Amino acid sequence: MRGRMFSCGLDAAMNVIGGKWKALILWALHAEPRRFGELRRDLDGISEKMLIQQLREMECDGVVHREVFHQVPPKVEYSLTPLGQSLNAALLPLGLWGDEHLAAIEDKKKQQAAA
Amino acid sequence: MRGRMFSCGLDAAMNVIGGKWKALILWALHAEPRRFGELRRDLDGISEKMLIQQLREMECDGVVHREVFHQVPPKVEYSLTPLGQSLNAALLPLGLWGDEHLAAIEDKKKQQAAA
Repeated sequence: MRGRMFSCGLDAAMNVIGGKWKALILWALHAEPRRFGELRRDLDGISEKMLIQQLREMECDGVVHREVFHQVPPKVEYSLTPLGQSLNAALLPLGLWGDEHLAAIEDKKKQQAAA
Repeated sequence: MRGRMFSCGLDAAMNVIGGKWKALILWALHAEPRRFGELRRDLDGISEKMLIQQLREMECDGVVHREVFHQVPPKVEYSLTPLGQSLNAALLPLGLWGDEHLAAIEDKKKQQAAA
């Protein structure tokens, strides 16, 4: 059954990081584990519901680990698994490309919005 | 106004390649220009309407060039712009990551579907 769900590796990778938020969540977790509230502050504009959903999917995909600390008050931390770390590293060139072309991309989007 | 539309370069890059198809279209164009029908055959499962829409957005974003040859019958070819070529290069590590983990990703997706 291998290889039937996705047409290629890029297809599979895009499925794992699909949507606006997952790549940004991976990036937000790159340096150290983050609590839910910290992640929410890192990700400007994400709703609580959306962040919960994205983290749950990333946990299912094996790229994010959720650790519950049984203390008072209880603490939950999210971190990257080794798979998530390797995915984050693979995303680095894409982030650099975006940094380099940020202004040009924004200009084009504004032209499209105005047209 | 720079830098307000996207939180960072990765956010901007994900906006340009968002969705299931655009990264695959970039990849399909990496070697040589392709006609519409060729692209459609390359991209297993894409509808004509979806391919038209994705190509139009990629043209607006400046990553795909559309060339009309005025001949009989008329011919239209799609190719990567220099910006599209650099984006494609930046996506290469992500494709390799996906190749490496394709089987594991599929297994996880199947577990999720069965759960």
